[in-house]
Order: sequence, then C-alpha cells, then structure tokens
Amino acid sequence: MESNKRRGILERLNAGEVVVGDGGYVLQLERRGYVKAGHWAPEAAVEHPEAVRQLHREFLRAGANVMQTFTFYCSEDKLEISGNVTNITGAQINKAACDLAREVASEGDALVAGCVSKTPCYENSHSETAVKAIFKKQMDDFLKKDIDFFIAEFVNHVEEAVWAVEVLKTSGKPVAATLCMSPHGDMQRVPPGECAVRLVRAGADIVGVNCHLDPLTCVRTVKLMKEGLEKAGLKAHLMIQPLGFHTPECNFGGYTSLPEYPFALEARAMTRWDVHKYAREAYNAGIRYIGGCCGFEAYHIRAIAEEFAAERGFLPPASKKHGLWGAGLEMHTKPWVRARAHREYWENLLPASGRPKCPSMATPADDYEK
Amino acid sequence: MESNKRRGILERLNAGEVVVGDGGYVLQLERRGYVKAGHWAPEAAVEHPEAVRQLHREFLRAGANVMQTFTFYCSEDKLEISGNVTNITGAQINKAACDLAREVASEGDALVAGCVSKTPCYENSHSETAVKAIFKKQMDDFLKKDIDFFIAEFVNHVEEAVWAVEVLKTSGKPVAATLCMSPHGDMQRVPPGECAVRLVRAGADIVGVNCHLDPLTCVRTVKLMKEGLEKAGLKAHLMIQPLGFHTPECNFGGYTSLPEYPFALEARAMTRWDVHKYAREAYNAGIRYIGGCCGFEAYHIRAIAEEFAAERGFLPPASKKHGLWGAGLEMHTKPWVRARAHREYWENLLPASGRPKCPSMATPADDYEK
Amino acid sequence: MESNKRRGILERLNAGEVVVGDGGYVLQLERRGYVKAGHWAPEAAVEHPEAVRQLHREFLRAGANVMQTFTFYCSEDKLEISGNVTNITGAQINKAACDLAREVASEGDALVAGCVSKTPCYENSHSETAVKAIFKKQMDDFLKKDIDFFIAEFVNHVEEAVWAVEVLKTSGKPVAATLCMSPHGDMQRVPPGECAVRLVRAGADIVGVNCHLDPLTCVRTVKLMKEGLEKAGLKAHLMIQPLGFHTPECNFGGYTSLPEYPFALEARAMTRWDVHKYAREAYNAGIRYIGGCCGFEAYHIRAIAEEFAAERGFLPPASKKHGLWGAGLEMHTKPWVRARAHREYWENLLPASGRPKCPSMATPADDYEK
Amino acid sequence: MESNKRRGILERLNAGEVVVGDGGYVLQLERRGYVKAGHWAPEAAVEHPEAVRQLHREFLRAGANVMQTFTFYCSEDKLEISGNVTNITGAQINKAACDLAREVASEGDALVAGCVSKTPCYENSHSETAVKAIFKKQMDDFLKKDIDFFIAEFVNHVEEAVWAVEVLKTSGKPVAATLCMSPHGDMQRVPPGECAVRLVRAGADIVGVNCHLDPLTCVRTVKLMKEGLEKAGLKAHLMIQPLGFHTPECNFGGYTSLPEYPFALEARAMTRWDVHKYAREAYNAGIRYIGGCCGFEAYHIRAIAEEFAAERGFLPPASKKHGLWGAGLEMHTKPWVRARAHREYWENLLPASGRPKCPSMATPADDYEK
Repeated sequence: MESNKRRGILERLNAGEVVVGDGGYVLQLERRGYVKAGHWAPEAAVEHPEAVRQLHREFLRAGANVMQTFTFYCSEDKLEISGNVTNITGAQINKAACDLAREVASEGDALVAGCVSKTPCYENSHSETAVKAIFKKQMDDFLKKDIDFFIAEFVNHVEEAVWAVEVLKTSGKPVAATLCMSPHGDMQRVPPGECAVRLVRAGADIVGVNCHLDPLTCVRTVKLMKEGLEKAGLKAHLMIQPLGFHTPECNFGGYTSLPEYPFALEARAMTRWDVHKYAREAYNAGIRYIGGCCGFEAYHIRAIAEEFAAERGFLPPASKKHGLWGAGLEMHTKPWVRARAHREYWENLLPASGRPKCPSMATPADDYEK
Repeated sequence: MESNKRRGILERLNAGEVVVGDGGYVLQLERRGYVKAGHWAPEAAVEHPEAVRQLHREFLRAGANVMQTFTFYCSEDKLEISGNVTNITGAQINKAACDLAREVASEGDALVAGCVSKTPCYENSHSETAVKAIFKKQMDDFLKKDIDFFIAEFVNHVEEAVWAVEVLKTSGKPVAATLCMSPHGDMQRVPPGECAVRLVRAGADIVGVNCHLDPLTCVRTVKLMKEGLEKAGLKAHLMIQPLGFHTPECNFGGYTSLPEYPFALEARAMTRWDVHKYAREAYNAGIRYIGGCCGFEAYHIRAIAEEFAAERGFLPPASKKHGLWGAGLEMHTKPWVRARAHREYWENLLPASGRPKCPSMATPADDYEK
Repeated sequence: MESNKRRGILERLNAGEVVVGDGGYVLQLERRGYVKAGHWAPEAAVEHPEAVRQLHREFLRAGANVMQTFTFYCSEDKLEISGNVTNITGAQINKAACDLAREVASEGDALVAGCVSKTPCYENSHSETAVKAIFKKQMDDFLKKDIDFFIAEFVNHVEEAVWAVEVLKTSGKPVAATLCMSPHGDMQRVPPGECAVRLVRAGADIVGVNCHLDPLTCVRTVKLMKEGLEKAGLKAHLMIQPLGFHTPECNFGGYTSLPEYPFALEARAMTRWDVHKYAREAYNAGIRYIGGCCGFEAYHIRAIAEEFAAERGFLPPASKKHGLWGAGLEMHTKPWVRARAHREYWENLLPASGRPKCPSMATPADDYEK
Repeated sequence: MESNKRRGILERLNAGEVVVGDGGYVLQLERRGYVKAGHWAPEAAVEHPEAVRQLHREFLRAGANVMQTFTFYCSEDKLEISGNVTNITGAQINKAACDLAREVASEGDALVAGCVSKTPCYENSHSETAVKAIFKKQMDDFLKKDIDFFIAEFVNHVEEAVWAVEVLKTSGKPVAATLCMSPHGDMQRVPPGECAVRLVRAGADIVGVNCHLDPLTCVRTVKLMKEGLEKAGLKAHLMIQPLGFHTPECNFGGYTSLPEYPFALEARAMTRWDVHKYAREAYNAGIRYIGGCCGFEAYHIRAIAEEFAAERGFLPPASKKHGLWGAGLEMHTKPWVRARAHREYWENLLPASGRPKCPSMATPADDYEK
C-alpha cells in the first residue's frame, strides 16, 4: 500500500484502480444519537467530534480510499432553515469536519474529499448568482484546509450540479459530481445521459449518482450516463454511491417517497452479500469509484473491498476480523452454522424478514415535484 | 439525575424504578470491524479501546443505566478454542473492559456490570468444579476493578447458570442471571418457571432472559418465570435483554438456527417503534430491568428510554437529537414526509422489506441438542 | 374396481382401505353462481340440480368414494333464519340432494352419505330435546332415500355432535362425526382427545375433523383425537376433511376469523402438491378416510387419489387427463416448461403470490365465543 | 333484456354498450378433470359435453354476452402434435363446440363466437399459404353452424393474427383479434400501437389482447393499441380478456415463464374485488368488450357485470346469489363477519397468502424466443 500514498484521486482512476468510497454518515449518526432526523445537519463535527472520528475510522478500516468531510447540508441557508443549532456556524462545522477527515485519512491510504450538497436557495430563488455564492463560501472554507478534491453530491437538478461544478472547478482541484437520480432522469426529467454530458462540459472529472435509490438501480443509471458520454464523444470517470436499502418500487422521489422513510427502513437494509453483487455489477459497468451512501455501514464498505481483493491485491484492515464469504463460521460450535461457511450458501440465500404481517413492497408517495 | 448517582442496582429496582439496560456489543462491533463472527471474542477491548468506548458512550447517551463490561465469551477456555488472539489473555481483556465501562459510566448515571457467559467447559466436561473455577477466575478479575454488580448471561442450561450464581454470590455483590431460553424452557426443557426458582434459590437477585429470541417472545418467557416464582412463594427482580430481531419461527435453538444467522439478519431488525411496543409490554409484565442484546443499537435503547419518559421524568441526552415519535419530521422539505411526524403513523406502519423474492419466514435448522 | 361395488363404508375401512372423501360444495357453488355467501343454504339442489350434479360428478371422476348429500345447513331452523328461499322446504332439498348424490354415486364405486350440520337451535336454546328433534327430522328425510351412512359434520361443540350421533345411531346405519376444531379443542375448550372419546362412546363409528383449519393443522388435531381414544382403550376409524386453504395463524375461530373470509381467500388456496403432502401425512397418522372441505376442488381430490395410487392399485378416471407429478408437461412447446415435468420440481417449489403489497399472514379477529 | 336479443356484436358495441366476455375454459376444465395440461386440447366438447355445457352456463348466468366456442388449439396440426386424442377429429370438436355454445347462448342474451388460436404451423413453417389453409378449414367448420362472429385469439405474432383476420373476413362475419402481448409488444417486438394498426388494416372490427398477463398490465397494452390507432386515424372497437392471475414480474413470455405455471398459480388468483377494479380501469380506457381468460371463473365474470350494473341497467342471473360488495354477510352469525358487509372493507383489504415461507414475486424463465 505504501506506494499508493498521497497519490491523487485522478492518478488512481487514470491508472484503472478501483477507488473504494466510504459509506453513509447522517443516517448512521442519527442511529448513534448525534444527528437529528428531519434536520440532518452535521453539527456533530463540532459537538461530538469523537463520534464522527470513530465512524470515519470504521470506514477507513473497512477499506475506504476516501474520507468525505461530514458537511452534509452545511450551507448557511440550510443550517438556518433547519434551526437545529443556533450557536454553531457553517464555517465552524466545515473546518472541524475537514480536520476530522484529514486526521483519519492520515491513518491510512485515504484522500479527503470536501463535500457540498444541494441548497434550499436553488429551489427557493433559482438564482444562479445566489446559489453560486453559497457554493463559493463553502469551497473557501474547504480550501483553507487543503482537501484533496471536491464532491458535489445529493443534488436533484443537474442545473444546480452544473453550477456547483463551475464554482468548484475554480479551485484547481479535481471535481466529482453525483446526482440523486433514477434511470428516468433528474427532477426535471433530464435523462441521465444528458446530465452526464452537461456535468462533464461544466468541468466535472468524475460523474455518477449517489443516494436515493438502491444499488442495482443506480448501476443502471450510471450506465445510461456512460452511454450519453460515449455518444457525445466525452470522457470522464464514473462514480456510484447508492443507498444501502432495497427500493425496487421507487422512482423519481427516491426513498423519501417510501412510507418507511426515515424511521422504518430496517427491513430493506442490504446484506454484505448484496453488496458483493452490487460491487461486481458496478465494476462490470465500467465504474471505478465505488462506495455507498445512506445505509452503507462499515461492513458494507468492507464487502466492496473484499470483492475486489484480487483486483487490488490486498484486503483492508477490518478483514482481519472477517473470514471471506463466511469462512469464520468454520469454527462455530453448532454444525449447522459451520455448514454456512462458504460462498454458495450466502450467495443463494433468500433472507426472510421475520415479519409475516408486513408486505414486501410499498406504495411510494407521489413523486417529488409532481 | 444527580440524586440517583451511585445508587446501586438493587436500590433502584427496590424503589420500583425502570432500569434501562444497554444494547448488544458483539454483533454491532462485528459490523464496525472489530469482532470476528464465529469467534465472537472481545479482544477489541485491548486492541481498539476507542471503538468499545464509543459504543458504550452511545448506549449511555441513549439512556442506559448500566454499562456491561465487554467481556463476552471471555473465559480462558473459550478464548483458547476460538484461537482468535494468541497474545492477549482473558485477564487483560477483563481488566481493559472494566476500565472502559467505568470510564463511560462515570460520564453519566450508570452502573458497571461485570459479565460472564456460558463456558465450553460446561458442555465438554460437565464438571461443576472445573466450571466454577472458570467463573471464579473471571470474578476475581472483575473484583480487582470494583464493578457494581454481576450478570451471568447467555447461558443455555439453568444448571450452569446456577453454578455461576453460586460463585458470583461469594463476592457479596448483587447478582443477575439471564438465560437464553424460549417459553418452552432451557436446553434440557426445564420450564422457565422452574429455572427462575432454581436461580433465585441459588442466590440470584435478578432473573430473566437475554438474546436468542425476539422481544415479545422473551416477554412471554419472563412472564412464565414470574409465575414460577410466585407459585414457589419467591421474590426477585425481573430482567429482559432480548434480540433486536424478529424471530417468530424460532424455538429452542434460537436465532442461530435461522438460515440468516449471522450474516443476513438485516431484514429482521426491529424498528424503534417495535421497541416502544416491546418496552411497554415488558413493563406491563412487571419487568423493570429492560434492555437489549444482539441487534439492539443505540437508537433502540433510546426508544426504551423515551417510552418511559413519563415514568422516569426525564429523557436521555441523545433525545436532543430525536423528536419524539417522529416529531423532527415536521420541518422536512417534503409535505408527505412532514405528514409522518406523529405517533399514529409510526405505530400503524407495516414496513415493507423491499425484497419481493424473499419469504417472510424461514425454516429453522434442527434444534440445538436434539 | 368392480369387486368393491356396494361394499359399505365400514367394510372398506375395516379392510384397511383408503377411502377418498369428496371436496367442498358450498364455496365452490358460490363461485359458480348457485349459493349465496352469508346464507350458505343448499337450495340449488332443487333450483339448479344440473349444477350440483356436475360438481358431484367432478369429485367422482377425481376418485371420491363418497358422495355427501348437498344438504349443508339444511335444517328448518337454519333455512328459516337465512331466509334465502321461502318457497322451498328443507325436506324438498334433502330429498333432491339424496337423489343427485345417488345418481352420480351409481356412475362409479361411491357411497352416499347423508349429512347433517350444526343447528342454530343449539346455540340459541341449548335444548337437547329441540336439537335432537331437528336431527331426527333430517334423518327421517334421508332414510326415505336409503343413504349408505351418516355424517354429522361442521359442528363446533362436541356436545351437539354427541346429540347428533345419538339420534343418527337409531337408524342402524354407520355414523361418522367430524368437528370444526383446532388442536386446542372445541369451542368450549374440550380437548380433541376427550371429544373423540365422547363421540365414540355416543356411538360414532368414525370420528375426525372437517373444515375451519388447514390440512396440516387438522392432521395434528386428529392425531390428538387418536391419542385420546388409545388412552381410553377405545377404537374408531379416523376421518379428515380439512380446508383447502393455508391458515397458519388461525385458532379456535377457524378461517371465519380471517380478514379474507369469505371473499378474498384465493391467495391461500392449496396447490395439488400441497394436497399430496397432506394426504401422505394424514395416512402416516393412521387416518384412512381422507377428503376435503371448503376450498377442495376436483383436482385436489384427484391429488389424494393419485398419492395413494400404489396403495389402492388404481387411478381415478380424471387421471386420464393428468400426467402424474406434471408429466403432461413433457410435450409443452417451451423448453423451460418441459423442465417442470417431474416430481422434484413441484415438491420443492415455493409459489409466489404475485402480490408484493400484501402480507403473508393476517391477524385473525377475536376468537369466537371469547 | 328481451329487446337486446339477437342484436349482433357490432350493433352492441356501436351503440356504446358494455359487452361482457366470458371467462377461461381450459384451465378451469383442467381443474375439473376434463382437459390435460400440456396438451390443452378441447376434446371434452365431444367426450364430456355436460362439463363444457355447465361451464358455459355458469358464464352465462354470471352475465357473459358471448359464448366462445370451446375450440382452443383445435387446428388439425395442433391436435396431431398433442396426440391426446387420436379418435376424434378437429372437425368433430368444432361442430360439437358450436352446438354447446349455441345451446347455452340461447338460454340468455348471448352471442356465439367461433374461436381460432395460434397454429404450430406458423412457427414451424412460416408459410402464409399453409397457415391460412388451416384457418380456412376451421372457419368452414364454424360456418356450417352459423356462429355470430369470429375471434382470433391467443396469437403471439401480429403477422399470424393478420393472416387469420384476412381469412376470417372472407366469411362476411365480424372479426375480433386479440394478441398475447405485453406493453412491450408482440413476440417480435412489434409495438402494440403498430399491431393494432396492422390488424385493423387487415379488416379486424375489434382488436385487443387476451391471456398471458394480468388485468392491469393488459389495460396498459390496449391503451397503447388505442393510441396507435388514433395516430393512424383508424377506428376499431377495443377488447380485453386478460389472465385472472397477478403477474407483476412478467414480460414477453407471459405467465408461462413463471415458475408456478401451470400447477401452482393458486396464490396469484384474483379476487372478485380485483376484478371490479380492473373492469373499471378497462372501461375508463375506452374498452367496451371486457372479459377474461385463464383464471377467470364465473364469479369473476359476475364481478364485471356487477361493476357495470349502473351503466347497463341490470344485474346478471347469478347476482341473485350474491349480495353486492359483500352485502350478503349482513346476516352472518358472527359479528366480525357482518362487519365486512360493505364496499370499503373489501376494496381496501390486502389479502394475506397464508404462506410465510413463500416469496411474493418470482423470477420468470428467460423470455420466449430470446
């Protein structure tokens, strides 16, 4: 691993390496008691840095090559609306989050990505000037801390993402942009292929999708982005950070339209074996930056790293505590559990929900913006 | 809360207070990358104290009144078999685990419970002398660290649990004993009522069940223990720390007999609302020490604490980041999510699994020891 | 088959033969448009004899050895309450039903059973005299038509069944009695073993259960009846005619307590392969009169006859139109359908409901008489 | 009803009336013991006319305005391949089937439709001359019996359907043509809109779909056919006769690609309430010839007739035995069943399968002809 150290995100991707992304922060920290659902603001970076640091470290140990700053929804306009913390500024959070990400990244071979996400300002004002000013302010916070590259993520409209990319490119750093988008396109029905083209033309080095829909659906969307780029004669690296939940019935609105969002999603959670399958399909689709978003815990990220053990030539630190494909069960005291210590067993298992009075699919709420 | 400080476990229970237990350590730390499935040994207390400390802290913030030492399966005979760590002794782990539990307990109003669990020696040798020697050794480790009381937990045979209680009582500390047991009885079909009687006659101050089966099934088992005690004219406090998974089809073997154990249990995970219901039913059954075991994360423990907000007169620290019954959603940007910000919604929701190709119940493996 | 002709029900059972019962009439004729749900009265025997005759004939062709008269709920007190037909008397229906059953029975090797069922009078008056008078009246109708034996079926209270048996025994004909009963006992919680003893002591030659619960549950109940008889040193033939629906969540109230009763039971219907399994389990439990009740269509009865092809040495007429275990698919045009032409395929199939928004189990209404 | 008598199919449709189709014959007669699965040939019209007559009569009583001749797969080339009956010719079956249909049609206000279906010859030889000769032979059989109109149904390729229409139009009778087709198009991916245009240009008076997919999917397909006709400036009546099973996961291959086909489809069966919803959606889509195919039993057809009671001004004969929307339950003995005697209850019920170990969706076999 030593030789990889400090190599930049584009160096790695240009070399054809798999870059393992990290998992989801807000949902996991909500469960741990540090983020408030509905607000989803990242004040924990200031209030409880030990909790954020620990989660970063779990992802690092699981094999993540990138530590995303815990700065979700951390624009001043969003923090003001959420009203969750009145005594902490966005700049303070951004600063603290950069320090935490860098501290843990330095414990391994990881890069720090400064993250911005969609702004309420876009939907309220639709003013390019105002929105760009917000992204500029966040970017300046990050640049004080020397992050490695930028990610604009969790954006529903390609137009806003383009504005973000245009601002972030002025930093001279590499820029990734991921939309919350189904195969049907962004919130204004701009198809994935066209979204990709616009983002790349705006300067994005890496494009893809994050959150909102389940892994296999997201792979389909990124494939459409790739086709769009190919048709336009453009090139860019592809990135995917999907939900860690099964959402077969979702469309434009994504998982927020499910009745279970956000407090009863448990039964939809992916197993580590679901992640193996997803990671391979993403790879086969030509995607090389492969991570997760809400619902991806450390063991899901480890599953990505383990799926690519052969391609990458090494296992992550946390695999010391994990027999590949269940091998650790070989020494279980019960014979029927020992019989599960192999790949075929887990690949073919159809896990029961233990909830015979519950359905397997729900009716999503009306789609967003319809 | 100040006035409660340092009051012992029996003082609290004798006063009729609800004691909120903590959640599960091994499964959660497996997911975070610090425990190896199949071995399930707690070497992380020595290797990665920051990870254990953080999980303790999450339970404390969620409202737990007890920090159980992270010493599961930490008898020398079990550690030797598991072979996971060759350079760390059981005594080292027990010591480190006590320090971690005490450190976090002191940050709030929590007690430290020294925990012992079933020994391989019991099933292999069935020697009372040998098994008691093992429990004695662990007890001595704990007594060097001044824990507040003992818990003998995760024991399948009441006979072994009785031996544990007999040893631990010599410490002069209060002793709790919880069996892994279905309403049909322990592994040798000793009915719950009789198990309770034997444990109390051996000196246990608190009796109940932990792990292996889902919350509502465990409540039924503890009710049977209570009835047994009443018939025998005995008195003891009741305790419950069930699985955080739905296991309606399980019997004697518990969840290890499920095909999904241990790597595909996700779909069975309880929601926070399931926990509210469980906590109330446990309370109505006369149980006052109410916590969780494998599958119980911090937000499940917080749900217990929130369910008893009226009885206890306060909310736990982590409730600052949680609107009761979903109230935090009132300010969500989407109207249909705002419509979920109330108790009726979550109490009546039947959450979908998102897995239409999976069943809702499985066929358990043949029961243990049959 | 010739040599079996006209041999009585007890001759057959005493010889150790399997007697294949017929299936359900009222539910099937409701679907065909001849019986009104809620009333469930059998006026079709008079109004539309061709429809009743055709259903008899289907059961005969499927292998049934008994044609039960279509006289369900055909006591005057019940007909009066249902108010469905004002111009047709019970005596007219009983007479017509006997003729239809005899006509079709004569087309093959079948016997005619005169059937009585529970009376409203029992629950309203609880008068032994009044109830017995009703059964006597029906019996007299049947005796004018020379039926082969009697069945008292669909009775919820063993007391009423005993009264029926006492009346019917006066005819000198063999008497069978089947209760609607779960393994927990009849409506007054009289355990199955005791119910069986009372019925046999009253004179029943054949005892068992019918309707209300699914096949495997009914097998468990009849096993308990058998154990009761053995303990009491009594002997009787055993009979089973369960529901053709899966009702794993039902108890005392039976399927009428399910939310789907009676107009949305489709998804619970048994396949022919479920029936094979049931028939074998019934046989292994020592039951020799094996048929079905509501939900059992002709192809379910044929599955019973096919399961016992080896024991009986012949197949029923309708098997000319059925390849055993799906063999007829061997010549299907599609290769993947041809691949299903064998027993292993159908025995192991877990059929999907095609209803991802529906649960797999329901919550029964409060049990009857609680 | 008298005034409607003998009015032709086009008179009725031109007048804007709803024409209620009949249900499925082959699957139902397989269950009753008269048709062999895999062969699916209609020799029962000759061998067991009473069984076919009874099923016709059930559909008539349920409100069907059309009796389709029971002549499925009744071309000589198909009968030869199936080899099920060697002593009965196709001409004999066609003749007997026409007589049966006419006999029952005359008992009410129904028309007789002579039915042809896809030929093995088409797929084997692809010879227009040979295929048309087969259709001509069948047509001549029907014309000897004076049927009211023709239906070419269960055809997978629009090309073969066009050939059938071209032959049948030479009779001077009205011709309907229904394809087995998903919204994605026929077996060669010809889109529904184009299929409709080709059929109408070939002379079809009525076009639509039958069998293979569930009702709501079929409504979507017919809508696409309608749009195609409108774009092309063409006019035709629309017809729909879908499966009576839920098949949400099916595509081109239709239900034969489901693992449950044909012997374990029970759990997918529609309720009468599903049919009400389907019938209304079909009507709202502009379809006026509304019936069913495999899986539609008499009570499903009655549900169509009852849904249109207001539009048509009358109820079918079988509604004498059916309280609308469950009204007949008002007099049930159990209060919780009486509580189900209204529309809201049944419209909102999500029926449980009673099969907790089964999934809700299956994986279809590879699509046909891929």
